[in-house]
Amino acid sequence: MTFRTTRRGLLKSGIAAGATAASAGAALANTPDPLITELQDWASGTGDGVDATPYGLPIEYESDVIRRNVEWLTADTISSINFTPIHALDGTITPQGCAFERHHSGAIELRKDDYRLMINGLVDQPLVFSYADLERFPRENHVYFCECAANTGMEWAGAQLNGAQFTHGMIHNMEYSGVPLRTLLEEAGLDTAGDLAGKWVYVEGADASSNGRSIPMEKALDDCLVAFKANGEALRKEHGYPVRLVVPGWEGNMWVKWLRRIEVMDGPVESREETSKYTDTLADGTSRKWTWVMDAKSVITSPSPQSPITHGTGPVVISGLAWSGHGKITRVDVSRDGGMTWETARLGKQGDSKALTRFYLDTEWNGEDWLLQSRAIDETGYVQPTKAQLREVRGENSIYHNNCIQTWHLKANGEAENVEVS
Amino acid sequence: MTFRTTRRGLLKSGIAAGATAASAGAALANTPDPLITELQDWASGTGDGVDATPYGLPIEYESDVIRRNVEWLTADTISSINFTPIHALDGTITPQGCAFERHHSGAIELRKDDYRLMINGLVDQPLVFSYADLERFPRENHVYFCECAANTGMEWAGAQLNGAQFTHGMIHNMEYSGVPLRTLLEEAGLDTAGDLAGKWVYVEGADASSNGRSIPMEKALDDCLVAFKANGEALRKEHGYPVRLVVPGWEGNMWVKWLRRIEVMDGPVESREETSKYTDTLADGTSRKWTWVMDAKSVITSPSPQSPITHGTGPVVISGLAWSGHGKITRVDVSRDGGMTWETARLGKQGDSKALTRFYLDTEWNGEDWLLQSRAIDETGYVQPTKAQLREVRGENSIYHNNCIQTWHLKANGEAENVEVS
Repeated sequence: MTFRTTRRGLLKSGIAAGATAASAGAALANTPDPLITELQDWASGTGDGVDATPYGLPIEYESDVIRRNVEWLTADTISSINFTPIHALDGTITPQGCAFERHHSGAIELRKDDYRLMINGLVDQPLVFSYADLERFPRENHVYFCECAANTGMEWAGAQLNGAQFTHGMIHNMEYSGVPLRTLLEEAGLDTAGDLAGKWVYVEGADASSNGRSIPMEKALDDCLVAFKANGEALRKEHGYPVRLVVPGWEGNMWVKWLRRIEVMDGPVESREETSKYTDTLADGTSRKWTWVMDAKSVITSPSPQSPITHGTGPVVISGLAWSGHGKITRVDVSRDGGMTWETARLGKQGDSKALTRFYLDTEWNGEDWLLQSRAIDETGYVQPTKAQLREVRGENSIYHNNCIQTWHLKANGEAENVEVS
Repeated sequence: MTFRTTRRGLLKSGIAAGATAASAGAALANTPDPLITELQDWASGTGDGVDATPYGLPIEYESDVIRRNVEWLTADTISSINFTPIHALDGTITPQGCAFERHHSGAIELRKDDYRLMINGLVDQPLVFSYADLERFPRENHVYFCECAANTGMEWAGAQLNGAQFTHGMIHNMEYSGVPLRTLLEEAGLDTAGDLAGKWVYVEGADASSNGRSIPMEKALDDCLVAFKANGEALRKEHGYPVRLVVPGWEGNMWVKWLRRIEVMDGPVESREETSKYTDTLADGTSRKWTWVMDAKSVITSPSPQSPITHGTGPVVISGLAWSGHGKITRVDVSRDGGMTWETARLGKQGDSKALTRFYLDTEWNGEDWLLQSRAIDETGYVQPTKAQLREVRGENSIYHNNCIQTWHLKANGEAENVEVS
């Protein structure tokens, strides 16, 4: 069908309103659609009962909307990564079932009854908490994004991966329920009102990798959560069941899964995960460390290589995601000409701090080539940089913290391709 | 372990701080916990790889956190109901996989390519939309609760069902993405700025039941959504894939699944679903109709019959859910003595309008009997009524719209029972 021009001008059709109205009517009256005019199977008998599966799964027709692994990125599945199908999602919440995962020594199975969390080091009284103990402390709920520091990492050297799921899918966004880390540190007798200058916590997981990371005390006492639930339900095994650390706005590697120990220390450990990995190698070969915050970033999820325009010319919704580890997203701009001109997108709803924000540009496409870009601006005034701007500071040797503007080349056939603009 | 009294007084232990600190230390030093002192299997080898399942499921240990059907409520699974495991969830979001379902003629399988939505009746131009058409209109994202009008319906006659899942589990809360119904009505040429007094829309689904319902035009133009996604991903088959109507704050039966037709009419249809069903029978045998809004309501989810206290006396978190079809929840009170005295609970986060709000009371239990109740207050000032107050107006013949205060009897052994207080 062809769209009519609405009174409110929400859709701007290139065709006169009268003519379009006539053709829409014709579509209904003159070309009978058997899906409308004939009785269909689904309307003439009963469907499936409600108790088919104890825990419900997506319909079979959505079997392509899944996490995807790639063979070339890591050596095996034990240390591998899979990607959220962000090209096929809308809104902001990521269901656990399709949320990206990264494991350093596989995903372990740990019963609640076998779970222990130790707090030791520079505290008045080392403590060990069972899972049931943790549930007795006051808890909070917050929606936060979790982004792997390596998200978009392959793109440093040029346009590599043809799909938003692969370029930007190492991210998810869930509502976490848990106890503030500050509360547990205070329980162990840390004087959080006293002089804590130079103090750190070292956090590690119960898996063989332990994935130990150092976190400055200021962040530990700010908004970190010892979380049990995501989107209301228990964490999936692969997300750290029964307990993971949530470090809002900071790189996902610090969100330690199967959290087993928190040690209060005088300084950082400089562990493997914060020296040989998760540091940023610059053009001269030296590396920057302690680059924890995920800077403001955005990506257009539709149209995109995995989500082409299939409905022909006319009204089209350009949609994507924006986020910042520094707080709220205040504006997202969209360009159709590779960054020469920009339009302000509409935010789906006012975004939470350190959480995904959905943006839309309701516009029209007449079959011309577009160089689609989006750029996020956060509450600090920071503007997402171009790849050229980022390379000027960082060179091309980095893996982590690539938050550059992404470009999709939309072609006359509606397909989109990952390209680089100079 | 025993809890220490914190400096901030978050946990109020009955034992002196020094003594408790000592016993906590002792627990760690003198009774070696093999889970702490010995190398565990999960820390000495690699776990599972990340690509085990394309769409991830909850861990096996959570296999009891599922939707549950009951045999006695309806004749068969085709017309049956299952219940959200609210006793086991935290936060506010309900994952689709464990969200309650109600079908009138089973759940049908409808491909996006076979999907059509007709708007006809008193419009300038009847229109038929394909799924791809709908995706071209400006869309919005909102979190809303969907509650079956019959939720808590069995409790009119007294305390019947022993578990929050069964008394209050016909509810879920998701982030919906969709097109405002208003936009589609305007596309069909409805003059939404003109005189629409007395006008209604009749909405029906593509399943054999059609589940037709009349909605006054004021609501249709207000906040109704023609939704494709819930919590970011496609609606599950059982939730109306590919398109359902969202009628915020109003009874779930109006949220028509597999939405196929919207007719603009001069008056309501008075269909089966709004006459012989989904009306409220009063004490004198007459019935009230058009009681669409779900009034303010709340329930304590833990402790509750399916979620007893197992950790002994001392600090305990009382937690539950509150919601109102009239807007935001502004306050929730909790009583431990069957409604004689009340304390104000802490809201997990500022609730959205017409969405679930999580509340907590961080307190202490010393093994005494409690008659636990919660009462919700919404932004209109409405206070959730007692069962006695509701019966005074409505009698005991009703099924629908029971939003009375729920009572759990917490016993010395930590178990809770559904009881009625006079």
